[in-house]
Amino acid sequence: MDANKEFLNDLTASIRPLDQDAMAAAKRHQKNLTKPAGSLGRLEGLAIWMAGITGELAPATAPRTVIVMAGDHGVVGEGVSAYPSEVTPQMVMNFLGGGAAINVLARQAGARVLVVDLGVATELDQLDGLVARKVAFGTDNIATGPAMSKSQALKALAIGAELAESEFAAGARMLATGEMGIGNTTPASALICALTDTPPEVVVGRGTGLDDSGLARKRTVVARALASNESALNDPVDALAAVGGYEIAGLVGLILACAAGRRPVVLDGFIAGAAALVAARIAPAARNYMLAGHLSAERGHRVALKSLGLKPLLDLDLRLGEGTGAVLAFHLVDAATRIMAEMATFSEASISQSVER
Amino acid sequence: MDANKEFLNDLTASIRPLDQDAMAAAKRHQKNLTKPAGSLGRLEGLAIWMAGITGELAPATAPRTVIVMAGDHGVVGEGVSAYPSEVTPQMVMNFLGGGAAINVLARQAGARVLVVDLGVATELDQLDGLVARKVAFGTDNIATGPAMSKSQALKALAIGAELAESEFAAGARMLATGEMGIGNTTPASALICALTDTPPEVVVGRGTGLDDSGLARKRTVVARALASNESALNDPVDALAAVGGYEIAGLVGLILACAAGRRPVVLDGFIAGAAALVAARIAPAARNYMLAGHLSAERGHRVALKSLGLKPLLDLDLRLGEGTGAVLAFHLVDAATRIMAEMATFSEASISQSVER
Repeated sequence: MDANKEFLNDLTASIRPLDQDAMAAAKRHQKNLTKPAGSLGRLEGLAIWMAGITGELAPATAPRTVIVMAGDHGVVGEGVSAYPSEVTPQMVMNFLGGGAAINVLARQAGARVLVVDLGVATELDQLDGLVARKVAFGTDNIATGPAMSKSQALKALAIGAELAESEFAAGARMLATGEMGIGNTTPASALICALTDTPPEVVVGRGTGLDDSGLARKRTVVARALASNESALNDPVDALAAVGGYEIAGLVGLILACAAGRRPVVLDGFIAGAAALVAARIAPAARNYMLAGHLSAERGHRVALKSLGLKPLLDLDLRLGEGTGAVLAFHLVDAATRIMAEMATFSEASISQSVER
Repeated sequence: MDANKEFLNDLTASIRPLDQDAMAAAKRHQKNLTKPAGSLGRLEGLAIWMAGITGELAPATAPRTVIVMAGDHGVVGEGVSAYPSEVTPQMVMNFLGGGAAINVLARQAGARVLVVDLGVATELDQLDGLVARKVAFGTDNIATGPAMSKSQALKALAIGAELAESEFAAGARMLATGEMGIGNTTPASALICALTDTPPEVVVGRGTGLDDSGLARKRTVVARALASNESALNDPVDALAAVGGYEIAGLVGLILACAAGRRPVVLDGFIAGAAALVAARIAPAARNYMLAGHLSAERGHRVALKSLGLKPLLDLDLRLGEGTGAVLAFHLVDAATRIMAEMATFSEASISQSVER
């Protein structure tokens, strides 16, 4: 058997349920804090979830890392993106120079940015600071055949998982998904269509800014990708190889490694949603380790989140990707765990409890 | 004329429109940043709004303060709250001790917490760290008559404004509204009903946790308050005196002082919404300086925000008050202005612009 297939089997087999005892203890602690029961809404749910993952009442949320995986897409030749593929390596250099939105928001959130080449179509090995793990020079055109071989998909997935594990080994307590790849809303759309059995008209959106005719063309291209790869779409790893991308496969591995390593993974938007769907189809228990950082303006994101049963934390009309919405959500995870660590209890503060009314 | 009435007239007369030139410059700068146009959604709108207030492209957002105003309410005797009035001074002590939710979230956001007694029903002058500006020992019962005199309302409003101005003098670049007052969702409901001409069934909610019979009773009490004070409800200051509260009046002053001082004011939830409505009825131009930090779980908050024309940033099912939702939104204001200050432009990063598709 492919060593990477074996790696994936071991990874998924090691995913455990959340710690119910820790969650019950967190719920009890919430009730003793000096506030009306339930009045901190989703922050309370977040704190209970964090306890379930880590087994701790007030777990640390730092250090943390956003892993930005980059890859190119042969399908860009079909005219599905408002930007040319050369922007992928240009943005990789922007990430390394610290000038992109994800760099700014990660600095604000105290998160490390790890930039990974998994499948950019140009040679980038010489770039200082880049994690050079290229599996191939971009995918093939999914409109006419598979994006990559199954073995390449498994390889990219294993790299993503290993990078996550190496962050954990270095102390990371939480990860965010990040990505860059001109054209990657097209494979993400195809994956979401395939894995949720939803037609392209519902899932496909404007990406970075297509006009009406561009949108119509992109829908046709996704329909062609689904037709060309039909026989591969019943298995999540086969579907990933057929209509996915290298950075998407890397994100699937990252997400599964978080679940296996009992670390929260904060999902960014549309591309992360597609990767999370693949991860959840491979290992349904991985879903418990996912937090939807935000709802993307890209319309199909709702379809992915609904199928995953995840409710997004933020809704700010973002559609940039890179991990930006996930890193913004870090502040809310911090808030939730700080409340557990620092708030006074009713008895500590000598405060009267509520009366029945 | 009452000196505080004169103060209010001067305050409202000094509110200016937003700086349109600075907003246009901020929009142009956004278009040059290395991201698809519009892809940072509400963060872009926030940055443009901040420029309009301050006249700066990337204004500082710190130091900042959440001013927590406290007051008691005679209407609590009608059984409208799940907690007794003695919790108001207990929570004031909790704020001063640093153990309340607002202390935790303000520490996270790097915000100063200023705790003000504007109308707590017990003697608190000896408390270390408290800003002791009590106008009266709680309001009278609004179910049977006015909460306070007009002169008391103007006094509390002026104190709120002066506290804001003194924060600005000390360097504050942005304020958040905070409050504590057992029973204060009842006067806030009455104000929202009166100023938006909406029936109590639509506005009144469970506050800190009323059961069904408590909720029915609270609705009746609000209807009685509106009937008892009917003749006062056509003027915003008269309405504030009739069915408001001391901490609510203080917040009205704080909000107007932000508008007059060209500083953003981040509104917390339901109580802040009622104060913001009063402020906007007194001076419609003040609305331009308000940011709705979040949507409260208290149902009537939607009514207030709709009437104000404000779209909340966060929606986390919070219903605690104290300023908690406003302080959480500080992180997003920071993100918006950091993007303006730190992101690379297309030309700086040598990145290709989009093509028409």
